Amino acid sequence: MTAPERGFPEEECAARVARAQGHMAAAGLEGLLLTTEAEVRYFSGFQTLFWQSPTRPWFLFVPAAGKPVAVIPEIGAALMRRTWVEDIRTWSAPAPSDDGISLLRDLLAPYARIGLPKGHETMLRMPLGDYERLTRLLPNLVIADATAIVRDLRMVKSAREIEKIAHICAIASRAFAKVPDFVHAGQPLEETFRAFRRACIAEGADDVPYLVGGADQGGYHDVISPPSVTPLRPGDILMLDTGSVWDGYFCDFDRNWAISHADDASRRAHDVLYRATEAGLAAARLGATCRDLFRAMQGVIAEYDSGPGDVGRLGHGLGMQLTEWPSHALFDDTVLTENMVLTLEPSLGYGDGRIMVHEENIVITDGAPRLLSVRAPAELPVIG
Amino acid sequence: MTAPERGFPEEECAARVARAQGHMAAAGLEGLLLTTEAEVRYFSGFQTLFWQSPTRPWFLFVPAAGKPVAVIPEIGAALMRRTWVEDIRTWSAPAPSDDGISLLRDLLAPYARIGLPKGHETMLRMPLGDYERLTRLLPNLVIADATAIVRDLRMVKSAREIEKIAHICAIASRAFAKVPDFVHAGQPLEETFRAFRRACIAEGADDVPYLVGGADQGGYHDVISPPSVTPLRPGDILMLDTGSVWDGYFCDFDRNWAISHADDASRRAHDVLYRATEAGLAAARLGATCRDLFRAMQGVIAEYDSGPGDVGRLGHGLGMQLTEWPSHALFDDTVLTENMVLTLEPSLGYGDGRIMVHEENIVITDGAPRLLSVRAPAELPVIG
Repeated sequence: MTAPERGFPEEECAARVARAQGHMAAAGLEGLLLTTEAEVRYFSGFQTLFWQSPTRPWFLFVPAAGKPVAVIPEIGAALMRRTWVEDIRTWSAPAPSDDGISLLRDLLAPYARIGLPKGHETMLRMPLGDYERLTRLLPNLVIADATAIVRDLRMVKSAREIEKIAHICAIASRAFAKVPDFVHAGQPLEETFRAFRRACIAEGADDVPYLVGGADQGGYHDVISPPSVTPLRPGDILMLDTGSVWDGYFCDFDRNWAISHADDASRRAHDVLYRATEAGLAAARLGATCRDLFRAMQGVIAEYDSGPGDVGRLGHGLGMQLTEWPSHALFDDTVLTENMVLTLEPSLGYGDGRIMVHEENIVITDGAPRLLSVRAPAELPVIG
Repeated sequence: MTAPERGFPEEECAARVARAQGHMAAAGLEGLLLTTEAEVRYFSGFQTLFWQSPTRPWFLFVPAAGKPVAVIPEIGAALMRRTWVEDIRTWSAPAPSDDGISLLRDLLAPYARIGLPKGHETMLRMPLGDYERLTRLLPNLVIADATAIVRDLRMVKSAREIEKIAHICAIASRAFAKVPDFVHAGQPLEETFRAFRRACIAEGADDVPYLVGGADQGGYHDVISPPSVTPLRPGDILMLDTGSVWDGYFCDFDRNWAISHADDASRRAHDVLYRATEAGLAAARLGATCRDLFRAMQGVIAEYDSGPGDVGRLGHGLGMQLTEWPSHALFDDTVLTENMVLTLEPSLGYGDGRIMVHEENIVITDGAPRLLSVRAPAELPVIG
């Protein structure tokens, strides 16, 4: 396996900023204030796991023209200097009395109207009290919602981004293919998870930040649980769903197996979901909407779905985060465009509160979508 | 190795809520609104990696009397029903037009003054625009900063919490002890990281969400980088710093090694930091403050520190998050009390911009602190 090159050349970050600046001009914004890991990384190239620590806020300001300005804790200065950002303003953090707020005030004082992502799937990664203080220090500054700008840019991936996502999808596909080698009846589910996580890393994943699943007789009952210590039993349906990462980009797909033998209801659920995914693949064409994708999959799911286990949508965007805009749901009329990376994630409820979920990862092209995950088998596989 | 029991009995969550309600009465608050993974888990016992997806907000409301109320996406209902929370209100999420906001409005309408963590080391995990809408829907509701309540509770760990942190510290200590078996000159640093991550999982970690470090000739230059593909060379100083988790609780400590041979400057830095940690251990007594701890360590560090590499503090709290309150820094006069779990993390700059960091994890007792990490060796170890 040959891994793609890590990171991005400066021109890629510059192109992202230029596109954002075009949107900003159209929206009448003099700058964008960004506070989350994905947003800061997207425009600066700054990548670190240090965001795991909630102690320190980090800020990137993208002005209407020119390069971004970083306002960050001193501990990040050396790493930020390796990016294309030149104007790096730091303070000795943590400093609860002034964690970057006076630096931000000085930076933003000349402006009348800037944007900040405030909408769906965004958050403000700084203490709310500090944000409230900043708005009091700059009473004339209008801070408008800039979600649409960030969303529209990030929904469509570059060739290099797709290469990274394809790489981690291939890694996870190999790990899923090896599941029959290390999963067996009698194994506590916690050990199954641990073995799968190690397999992903052995195949080349940098990390496996997301691994959920379930196993139970004739079907699992929820899809977001941590693993129990209950041993796998013959007749269990096992599901593993991973968001593994490589160079800061996620895959997000799952697989289902029957342990030793499969019950008819679960085989049927698997068949319905396989065909729902086929319908999704057929519908995933330029110009279709996410709502169309939802309807295409739901049309098949309706054959068998008994209702419970509402996951709210049948797939979503994928990239720097495990889930990104858009959503395959009735509310989302986003039009599919070339180089969107999406999951197709049909699910259904069956039996007495059991649930099954399928998931594949695709790229939208000018023809049929390109599968990044190795397609699940048409029939529920029996292992162990 | 025998793992502790996973999860917490209902009485532990109930005790946390009762203590919070005592603080709320003193602060004149009729309830606490919580939005982050750690806060929701602390009071409900609800544990899932699904928080990795930024798409859906999750809310827990702790009233002045009685059990918490969960306002969550339907996808989490089955898992939340396994906790002690009884009043679970759900909606089909995502729903950008109303992601729980009207449910929150109905829940909060009877109240005049509630608390929300807005201060240092907190954040609001919901779209800011939704929060602004909620405040417009409830114009008479005062939402005060409740950071102190959550901080004061979470800083002091229960016996079960300490057991979990001790378990993951022991796991990481075993993984660090095995580093000489799988790290060698010529190994790309990226592979070193991958091998270490697998070792942590093999030793029993659920996950390794945080792994940073560095390696360079005669010392590394920053402490938050992802790994390069540069092979380790004789004369490199290697540092690995892990936040591994078990059952939702973190360890956070690092180790340093010289590859093949050690330069004098790095040996001296290691010796100074070892002694700074000893000074921290000696100072970590009931009644001392975090500022005292900082001064005790800084007094030794000053022997050799050349200034760069400002990490802002010399250790911090540890538990459900990689870093928690308090901070060993001049600004923090938190008094050490029994069962606080803390890191001691002295660091210094030396040479031409090199940096070294040591870290141990401890519990405050009524005598000497209890080490949870196996103490680093006094002399910089040479491997590979």
